[in-house]
Amino acid sequence: MTNSVPSPRVQTEEGMPARVTVFEVGPRDGLQAETDIIPTPVKAELCRRLYAAGSRDLEVTSFVPPAWIPQLADAAEVVAAVDVPDAARAVALVPNLKGLQRALDAGIREVSVVVSATESFAKANLNNTRSGAIDRAVEVIQAATADGIPVRGYVSMAFGDPWEGEVDTQAVAQAATALHEAGSRTVALGDTIGVATPGLTGRVVQETLAAGIPVSALALHLHDTYGQSLGNVHAALRLGVAEFDASVGGLGRCPYAKGATGNLATEDLVWMLHGLGIETGLDLGALAATTLWLSRIRGIPAPSNVARALAAAGASELTQEAASA
Amino acid sequence: MTNSVPSPRVQTEEGMPARVTVFEVGPRDGLQAETDIIPTPVKAELCRRLYAAGSRDLEVTSFVPPAWIPQLADAAEVVAAVDVPDAARAVALVPNLKGLQRALDAGIREVSVVVSATESFAKANLNNTRSGAIDRAVEVIQAATADGIPVRGYVSMAFGDPWEGEVDTQAVAQAATALHEAGSRTVALGDTIGVATPGLTGRVVQETLAAGIPVSALALHLHDTYGQSLGNVHAALRLGVAEFDASVGGLGRCPYAKGATGNLATEDLVWMLHGLGIETGLDLGALAATTLWLSRIRGIPAPSNVARALAAAGASELTQEAASA
Repeated sequence: MTNSVPSPRVQTEEGMPARVTVFEVGPRDGLQAETDIIPTPVKAELCRRLYAAGSRDLEVTSFVPPAWIPQLADAAEVVAAVDVPDAARAVALVPNLKGLQRALDAGIREVSVVVSATESFAKANLNNTRSGAIDRAVEVIQAATADGIPVRGYVSMAFGDPWEGEVDTQAVAQAATALHEAGSRTVALGDTIGVATPGLTGRVVQETLAAGIPVSALALHLHDTYGQSLGNVHAALRLGVAEFDASVGGLGRCPYAKGATGNLATEDLVWMLHGLGIETGLDLGALAATTLWLSRIRGIPAPSNVARALAAAGASELTQEAASA
Repeated sequence: MTNSVPSPRVQTEEGMPARVTVFEVGPRDGLQAETDIIPTPVKAELCRRLYAAGSRDLEVTSFVPPAWIPQLADAAEVVAAVDVPDAARAVALVPNLKGLQRALDAGIREVSVVVSATESFAKANLNNTRSGAIDRAVEVIQAATADGIPVRGYVSMAFGDPWEGEVDTQAVAQAATALHEAGSRTVALGDTIGVATPGLTGRVVQETLAAGIPVSALALHLHDTYGQSLGNVHAALRLGVAEFDASVGGLGRCPYAKGATGNLATEDLVWMLHGLGIETGLDLGALAATTLWLSRIRGIPAPSNVARALAAAGASELTQEAASA
């Protein structure tokens, strides 16, 4: 289907990882930030298409209380509706032990937890103090790993905070270390509001590595508010970071909403990685087709650069795919 | 006016230039690619606002035959309507000796010329062969410099060509060398269709430097078709490149047109540069306000990430500026 879709010319750069894990957060972090609520069958089809595009690292939903995030109130139904391919991950975010139990009951076998680098975000979004949120996350990590359930940890507001402004890089390293030492397989440093630039990205990564977290256990979770994500990815790749979060079509971007803070779009990231000769296992054409398909269903313009460009470049398979889906 | 506009947190990165020239091409390369024709007074006001935002390196228009680019048919009128501040440049693109004479007659004191790295673009857009276009550019450079008029040279299609695909990097270096040796002060390597990724950017820059062009005479002219520009800028900064072309608001992006290939948005570039602690002399808030002002006049959404984000972040001066202009 995607043979005639343009792909970037490959030119490697010294000192880069040979392979990168693209951790797809569109169905979770993307959809939770969109104002419209996507029907359960569309969410399940989105996950199916992402797996079919080669994703093996997918965050499918979140088991937070439905009153907190109505967009993801159907978490258990989504999990039930998604067939997870062999060797693929289906991760669900859980806020606490109760959420962990709901996720496990629904059939989830890998979870993620969130802490905050700042007090303000801990209070506003995690309903806790900074250290209280870390304690709660550690509790979940210990309970999950005791059951053989791997855990991924997020450190939110690792590069800036809308209330506090500059974030103490040592607070980031400390939160990351707490997650790592409790047993998180991966710690994702989150630029939740998208304010990082390449020098700051490098500094936060280096201080986190210096705190003892191996680079193989580190991921970056970038939002593209100021359009800076790929410059930041380039800086992090040079430091050996080999896992990046992204959402197909930049879901969560809310192009018409105040405070647009969408994730880095998966296909924009993959275009750069493939251009650098870095393997991802992902099919760019299938990702772009997924974006075009979902945009059509939602009645919005294609929200990523690559999906727009590939469609405009006359990759007719993409537009047919979008129209016939 | 712009004191309360958010600005990026500064974190320098080793080996970067301390200062970068942002060569503003919005009024020329941007507007020539837009489908609507902007009235002359609006173009003049755009230039005035760009100078007021700190720009000292501005390409104001192009003296190509009006039949080729009706969008810029009023080149002489625009030049007459723009007051150029002391120590600021007002550059006009000229296609040949006749265009040079028209520009000089209009009061222009610095020009730019275009050659192509590929035969297909030379034929389609320069109405010439590749070597014929270089000969014509050299003729203009020699005539201009004999009159004390500095010349800037562009090498189009330096990273990819829609007809030929991959471009020979040696052909790029050769075209750049011809412009440099004829007397161009700066040679800008153009990713005319926006297909470069960081590794390719680095390779083309390195081969051009190896051909004998000093890094101080080299610029990059990037389009953001696949959203890759800032990753490419980051790679080029690490090689010492200290001049980048950009257009305010990403003009030329034609968000709804097939084959959208807008320039890198000036304010997105400046956000990254300032975040890296690199001086530009530009005022981010004034740039974003200019984008919002022009978007309002044209009846389109703000087309750059930074302008959208700053407006959404509650930088009320910006939205007031846009509404009252």
